[in-house]
Amino acid sequence: MSILVVGSVALDSVKTPFGEKKDILGGSATYFSYSASFFTDVNLVAVVGSDFPKEHLELLRKRNINLDGLKIVEGQTFRWSGSYEYDMNEAKTLSTCLNVFETFKPEIPDSYKNIEYVFLANIDPDLQMDVLSQIKKPKLIAADSMNLWVKIKKESLLKLLSKIDILIINDGEARLLTEQPSLIKAGRIILDYGLKYVVIKKGEHGSLLFSKGGFFSAPAYPLEEVFDPTGAGDTFAGGFFGYLTKLNKKPTEHDLRKAVIYGSVMASFNVEDFSLERMKRLKPEEIETRYKKFKEITHFR
Amino acid sequence: MSILVVGSVALDSVKTPFGEKKDILGGSATYFSYSASFFTDVNLVAVVGSDFPKEHLELLRKRNINLDGLKIVEGQTFRWSGSYEYDMNEAKTLSTCLNVFETFKPEIPDSYKNIEYVFLANIDPDLQMDVLSQIKKPKLIAADSMNLWVKIKKESLLKLLSKIDILIINDGEARLLTEQPSLIKAGRIILDYGLKYVVIKKGEHGSLLFSKGGFFSAPAYPLEEVFDPTGAGDTFAGGFFGYLTKLNKKPTEHDLRKAVIYGSVMASFNVEDFSLERMKRLKPEEIETRYKKFKEITHFR
Repeated sequence: MSILVVGSVALDSVKTPFGEKKDILGGSATYFSYSASFFTDVNLVAVVGSDFPKEHLELLRKRNINLDGLKIVEGQTFRWSGSYEYDMNEAKTLSTCLNVFETFKPEIPDSYKNIEYVFLANIDPDLQMDVLSQIKKPKLIAADSMNLWVKIKKESLLKLLSKIDILIINDGEARLLTEQPSLIKAGRIILDYGLKYVVIKKGEHGSLLFSKGGFFSAPAYPLEEVFDPTGAGDTFAGGFFGYLTKLNKKPTEHDLRKAVIYGSVMASFNVEDFSLERMKRLKPEEIETRYKKFKEITHFR
Repeated sequence: MSILVVGSVALDSVKTPFGEKKDILGGSATYFSYSASFFTDVNLVAVVGSDFPKEHLELLRKRNINLDGLKIVEGQTFRWSGSYEYDMNEAKTLSTCLNVFETFKPEIPDSYKNIEYVFLANIDPDLQMDVLSQIKKPKLIAADSMNLWVKIKKESLLKLLSKIDILIINDGEARLLTEQPSLIKAGRIILDYGLKYVVIKKGEHGSLLFSKGGFFSAPAYPLEEVFDPTGAGDTFAGGFFGYLTKLNKKPTEHDLRKAVIYGSVMASFNVEDFSLERMKRLKPEEIETRYKKFKEITHFR
């Protein structure tokens, strides 16, 4: 089975307590795709500018990520710049230059329209809806969003949530969306918007999975050092949704839990270096080893 | 087996988003004792003033908590007053009136001196050391501390840590003590101060257990509503140490993990109401039910 992902491909400038990098490969769809590619085939829809380095395309292709849906248009690639203090849970955005992303209208290539597993990375919820209308027979649809859309397009976002299966968002977004400080309550409220599953990511504090009859709480994989948290959430989503796509069946509660752990494992690798540097060196057997380790340090009798 | 606990018994005034209470029963040794009493016998050493309500003594006695070591002296009982905003993880201290607690010099009654399980709740580390010197043959010693002692009595605290087996502190204290933002690193550093086990409590984010060869990470028990977090840390310690005392053997990694979960379970009950109100209504079978539930919502294949 394969995934269709729609989102951003960007050039990031990032400053963390461990160093500073300019114009490195980033973007929600990039992190998602790279992570998911360890589990299944990925088909990308995004846009970059004519300045986008060819070697980045090569990097994605080398992981068998289909770039037929990646448009290269005249102009500058989306650029984001941010910094992290010692509390690595929250990025301080220094600048966001949408550039060619500003007029991005995702067009799904005909060859993608029968794809059954769809991930809508964080873009305008109206565009996410528009993508859905182009897909013929989706089996499982997951999406991410952000505070901006809760603030300026809440109605569109709620409409989207009633059409998809899984929402994967972070704790701050869940609280803002539901106006509810308790994440346990927030998750239940979001489920009632019409979703099958809700995943709330809590950064270094782990994640929560909500479903109609179930609940799962997992800590994060313990790392001595978080080098650069950029893309951790999208990498989590890539591992989570990649695993479910690989299964290609109606997921059970246990499948979803495994997916959450695979998501956490992938994110834990991603934050060990800037951009996709750690992911580029990642071997499939390392994923399995860390999955086992995760079990070992969280289970009790 | 039984526990000796030395700490504070206080009258608290607490304000949370859910209400406000004046002069309710509190104190580290109170919360610890009450929680531990569900697992084993508890022998208390503390001091209160002549204003201390008799019904509180009755409440403790009804749980078989031995009060031979509780001194009642002329004057006012230790009073603490604090409030919580919607982020219930941190109390804002409004006032601390030590009163009779200011000159507290713990005297261990002869009948307590052979007790093998010792919990030193948060008091001046020099007093904690003094208590140790009065105990004949301790088998397992655990302690709590606080930011104040890290700041003004770090040397005494480090000396204490080299003499005890287990330190149970919260995330902020661990970071301050080690000057290390990463809790994973902080836990390892604290172990090297000469401890066998370190437990770092992260409030609503769960807890971490460090030992020479092991590591365990547990989320908190998910509650829709935290009513009043006062005493959660001491209640955790009571469940944790109470369980280990009940076992009465050199704990294995798995025993310690179970102890952490029992601690979390007890704390999860405590925060459901003011003071010891929820604990007063607690039935032993509820503890076991929540323990099972904890496993159910955290395990994966």
